[in-house]
Amino acid sequence: MKNGSFTLPGEAGFEKLTLELAKRWGADVIRDSDGTKLSDEITNAGYGIYSTICIIREHNEWAKKNTDKLQQTFLCTEPVIAADSTLEISLMKDFFAEQFKINDSERAMKYWQVFDRTEDREIGKDSWSYDASKGTVTLKGIAPWHEYTVSFLAYRIWEEISMYNHTTNNWTKEHLMQIDPIWPETREYLRNWMDTWCKEHPTTTVVRFTSMFYNFVWIWGSSERNRHLFSDWASYDFTVSDLALDLFKEQFGYSMTAEDFINKGKLHVTHTPGNKRKADWMKFVNNNVIDFGRELVDLVHSYGKKAYMFYDDSWVGTEPYSDRFTEFGFDGIIKCIFSGFEIRLCAGVKAETHEIRLHPYLFPVGLGGLPTFAPGGDPARDARKYWISARRALLRAKIDRLGLGGYLHLVQDYPDFVQCIEDIADEFRTIKELHEAGAPYVIKTKVAVLHYWGSLRSWTLSGHFHETYMNDLIHVNEALSGLPVDVSFISFEDVKKGCLKDYDVVINAGAMNSAWSGGSAWNDTDLVSRITEWVYNGGTFIGVNEPSATPEGQHVFKTAGLLGVDEDTIDEICHGKWKFDIDKKGAEKYIPNGAFIKLRSKAHLTDGDASVFAEEDGHPVFTEHRFGKGRAFWLSSFETTPENNRMLLNILADCQKDGSDRYITDNLNTECAFYPAGNVLVVINNTEEEQTTAVKTDFGIRSFELKPCETRIVKL
Amino acid sequence: MKNGSFTLPGEAGFEKLTLELAKRWGADVIRDSDGTKLSDEITNAGYGIYSTICIIREHNEWAKKNTDKLQQTFLCTEPVIAADSTLEISLMKDFFAEQFKINDSERAMKYWQVFDRTEDREIGKDSWSYDASKGTVTLKGIAPWHEYTVSFLAYRIWEEISMYNHTTNNWTKEHLMQIDPIWPETREYLRNWMDTWCKEHPTTTVVRFTSMFYNFVWIWGSSERNRHLFSDWASYDFTVSDLALDLFKEQFGYSMTAEDFINKGKLHVTHTPGNKRKADWMKFVNNNVIDFGRELVDLVHSYGKKAYMFYDDSWVGTEPYSDRFTEFGFDGIIKCIFSGFEIRLCAGVKAETHEIRLHPYLFPVGLGGLPTFAPGGDPARDARKYWISARRALLRAKIDRLGLGGYLHLVQDYPDFVQCIEDIADEFRTIKELHEAGAPYVIKTKVAVLHYWGSLRSWTLSGHFHETYMNDLIHVNEALSGLPVDVSFISFEDVKKGCLKDYDVVINAGAMNSAWSGGSAWNDTDLVSRITEWVYNGGTFIGVNEPSATPEGQHVFKTAGLLGVDEDTIDEICHGKWKFDIDKKGAEKYIPNGAFIKLRSKAHLTDGDASVFAEEDGHPVFTEHRFGKGRAFWLSSFETTPENNRMLLNILADCQKDGSDRYITDNLNTECAFYPAGNVLVVINNTEEEQTTAVKTDFGIRSFELKPCETRIVKL
Repeated sequence: MKNGSFTLPGEAGFEKLTLELAKRWGADVIRDSDGTKLSDEITNAGYGIYSTICIIREHNEWAKKNTDKLQQTFLCTEPVIAADSTLEISLMKDFFAEQFKINDSERAMKYWQVFDRTEDREIGKDSWSYDASKGTVTLKGIAPWHEYTVSFLAYRIWEEISMYNHTTNNWTKEHLMQIDPIWPETREYLRNWMDTWCKEHPTTTVVRFTSMFYNFVWIWGSSERNRHLFSDWASYDFTVSDLALDLFKEQFGYSMTAEDFINKGKLHVTHTPGNKRKADWMKFVNNNVIDFGRELVDLVHSYGKKAYMFYDDSWVGTEPYSDRFTEFGFDGIIKCIFSGFEIRLCAGVKAETHEIRLHPYLFPVGLGGLPTFAPGGDPARDARKYWISARRALLRAKIDRLGLGGYLHLVQDYPDFVQCIEDIADEFRTIKELHEAGAPYVIKTKVAVLHYWGSLRSWTLSGHFHETYMNDLIHVNEALSGLPVDVSFISFEDVKKGCLKDYDVVINAGAMNSAWSGGSAWNDTDLVSRITEWVYNGGTFIGVNEPSATPEGQHVFKTAGLLGVDEDTIDEICHGKWKFDIDKKGAEKYIPNGAFIKLRSKAHLTDGDASVFAEEDGHPVFTEHRFGKGRAFWLSSFETTPENNRMLLNILADCQKDGSDRYITDNLNTECAFYPAGNVLVVINNTEEEQTTAVKTDFGIRSFELKPCETRIVKL
Repeated sequence: MKNGSFTLPGEAGFEKLTLELAKRWGADVIRDSDGTKLSDEITNAGYGIYSTICIIREHNEWAKKNTDKLQQTFLCTEPVIAADSTLEISLMKDFFAEQFKINDSERAMKYWQVFDRTEDREIGKDSWSYDASKGTVTLKGIAPWHEYTVSFLAYRIWEEISMYNHTTNNWTKEHLMQIDPIWPETREYLRNWMDTWCKEHPTTTVVRFTSMFYNFVWIWGSSERNRHLFSDWASYDFTVSDLALDLFKEQFGYSMTAEDFINKGKLHVTHTPGNKRKADWMKFVNNNVIDFGRELVDLVHSYGKKAYMFYDDSWVGTEPYSDRFTEFGFDGIIKCIFSGFEIRLCAGVKAETHEIRLHPYLFPVGLGGLPTFAPGGDPARDARKYWISARRALLRAKIDRLGLGGYLHLVQDYPDFVQCIEDIADEFRTIKELHEAGAPYVIKTKVAVLHYWGSLRSWTLSGHFHETYMNDLIHVNEALSGLPVDVSFISFEDVKKGCLKDYDVVINAGAMNSAWSGGSAWNDTDLVSRITEWVYNGGTFIGVNEPSATPEGQHVFKTAGLLGVDEDTIDEICHGKWKFDIDKKGAEKYIPNGAFIKLRSKAHLTDGDASVFAEEDGHPVFTEHRFGKGRAFWLSSFETTPENNRMLLNILADCQKDGSDRYITDNLNTECAFYPAGNVLVVINNTEEEQTTAVKTDFGIRSFELKPCETRIVKL
């Protein structure tokens, strides 16, 4: 048993338990959580102390005096059809009244917009008027039978994380508000507050910012039948305000409009490609967040404390994967994780210390209201499940610290959970040591995942796996997170700058018009030509679902000539389809027992030359097509499972030039990592059953009998 | 037993059988078929005689001397990627060499086009050259890594129906060619031929044209794995030729290009919306077909014979649903039918005599090569099946004659088939008499089916049911063909001219970008406004699959405000969905036991107000939404079955103003028609089992026990 690298959530009133578990789990740090405090007995026990602060909330007193400095957002009413040449629209009818309040200040109202959505045309300001007493906009002299909307600025009067915890736990305490550091007055106030806070917390060694200033977007609706109108972990809607809009115009020389955010009521979801104006806005916000964020970090440093950022909640505008992130001066980044891709997301941030917070959170209920530390819950089972997801990625990339969060006293009745965490903490420290000795072996295939956002959205799409499971790419990323392969995330611009030469495989996975497939970027013939040439010269293109798809042109898939398949459209309804036989030899080579490819997008063979490895209802779902010295695979969909992860590895391994088949287990329910520096092999069992497995190594074939979930570490 | 209204296929060598069955089936006419002849004994037996002629084939001698006057088509090679700045493309590589021959005459070559498909740009004529000896086009100085195609004119050297029969039956006789009456020389030749023919066939009473000049489009490929490259029953590709293109330019003042036909390799399938240039071309062809067609019909008339048109095969350009069709002077129209919609298609043509040719065709094998009059076949079962499909439509619209086609001798071994046809012929004559007394009762709901082609494509989409089953609309049409309701087919232009006032219900059914949904027509805000106003004032809009869908604008469904649902897109992936409960009362009202709506397009509730009657996997599939005094229904798909047909009737019946529930059976496996003129009720059993059913009439409720397939006719 080793010590350190573990952050324990302490709890005042449970000092004995706190210190006992700190010892048992090998903690070197104790933290507070949202809802818990640390007592002097704990803070003086010789541990490092993390203190959690959410810098923009818990200032209700100041907020109430400065209601014009609350954070805002644009909202747009649901379209209403006019049955006449006049129409009255209630602004707040669709929205949660406890979250929003109309901002009808003069400065804000100049950004309001009324649209004829049928004609996609703004209605002139002389054709509508606002009635503040009723909260309505009345349109006059308009075309009947068209649909109209009002886009307006609203203050957010209930900080969203607090709102969620409040409503989930039926709290009755005062609603917390969030203040906006775009205002010089807010900055001045927060500077002083932070300074005072540092003075008042001498035992704190690390200030854990949760996170900076702007929450991911979470717009709630008025009806309980549709409470969560909009949720996007990476969108920028909550960074807007009348002042920010004014400042943007000064700095960028043009005005953003409400419609730049509202986008026909769709908003700009992260799953769709951005545009120049959105990019400018992100840059503007990032500038501001770094400016003031760095000030706060400097202040924390001036007290001899470290500053870590929690990579969630109000992280928007910090962009940990941008080149500028290091300018904040953060000493560490902390990511709460459910999945393997989140391990890689955390590990890839440029920061000294990378910490993960495991699930389950020490709360009575977890995701979707299911019990964890409550009757019916089984937190040890949950912990093992998340650990299995995380561990395979932890073998691939170094994480420095592990932690938990929540109410520690809840674990008292769950001794198996306590034991499970003890085991996990030990395994974690061992794996970390292996990484410290040197990087693990990877196969020779260099993989690039290609999408609109490129490296800025490395590993993640937008939020957790369970929020994004409908996208093929999150499944691909999750599979890749634990495979023995080098992975990069590249954008279409990167390709146009010539980056393809660095890669053996390019993966493009997603639905048409999504950021992950790429949308209209594929109408750029230079992009298509570069990929075509690269495949001709030996590259492998893997397309999933609707790769390189746009509605324009001869092909839907702009790489159809490479893939040898193209999507079925109404235009092909009278066109014959190539008959095909399943290439059984190929199917056997790539598709392990139990792997599957569901029919998602329907495609047909273009020139009839593609090999078809699998079909559903007569439609090909997995194909390979040669072009020049290279080739292209197409999968109608991809879902991460042990079998399907192995299928992906089979494809990638087949793309090695002079590669070997070493350090791949012969049982897909197990995986392994080899650390050449110490000749250490780690073999993991990803199931709750015993498994037998063998690994071809440089020292011969090694066989293992693994207990359920076991991590076996052997020196070769 | 009655006599008449029946056309029997006679067969020389089987005179006794012919005359015996003519008597038994009550025939008044005997016809020949493709492959059979009539002997003098038959033609002189006192029956009317139909003679089948396919005017553009069986002239091989003349055709061989006039190979420049064979019919043509544009072909376009599959795209080829250039790996260099030069590229050689083989023109005939993709196509069936027995069907096509390159037309490289000077006049034709000026219409050839080479395209850079990656850039969607034509390549100048100075950048490519044609090598006649190799049949290749060589491109020079082109951008590598782009895709290129060559569009060229080709003669069709094997008449397609003959090609099909030939290859299906392994015939070895000479391939028949088709000559093009666009040439004055062809017309002159055919005039003389027709005149001679009439002289030589004094016993012929009716010349049955099969059909006029241009076949529906059927492009065959070089590979047996993809033989039928393109099949469209209503497309115009086979009407093109170098001369036609030259004449078009003279008459319309602009040139059609190869690309106007090729359309990025997609061709212009009937299932997609047309455009102005296609409309002009159709008009041009229609002018020519009527011009010369009328000449031939006049010639036939001059010999005291009648002229009927077989509405299939080379019918293209005749357009029986255009206003000009009567200009041909045809005395009758004959349609081969599998389904109910084809009965209505035939019945709706402006002609004196409407005749249907029943299936099965008297051939050893039928559709898809399955046996009919061959071991394993059951032609009586097949005949009953087609009769059940046809009969419900025959009750709704008058057809004048019934017939069969093929080799009569084949029926000798199938006495149950002979009996079945005897019964069918008798039922047919009785139904015809009922129509002659007066039209059947319909419910008060006036229904309009709205799509791009409007009345020009009334009832049909493009070809038979089994060729178009993937379109919702053919299912809707088939259901409607036997329902007691007035049905019209209207175009978007009709709506804009104010036709909605004549209807209670408008149905728009199809996939986005299809002619049946309507495609970009829905971006016309005037169209949307008119429908919106009409629903507000009491109309009912029924949308199926992706009604009124275009990718542009706030809503995919341009009638989303009426429907209360809109399609899910990638933009909504972060938007919450309205929760809903099934409206059980509504479900019970509309959805009979056994009816179903499969999930085809996925949609969400817009304002949460729609009633949901059915769902699949959490997605609504059948909804109703009120707007003003009207409402709109949405069905994610529609498939014709007895249960689903009744579901449609339930909706339509509910839209009656002061309507009644009379003359609807209480057992959906049975249907009925009431003929007020004679107070006659016809009740039919659409199943092969006995059924009990009751009908509310003006004379009280009447109950019936029906034998399998029975047609019960009672006077009330």
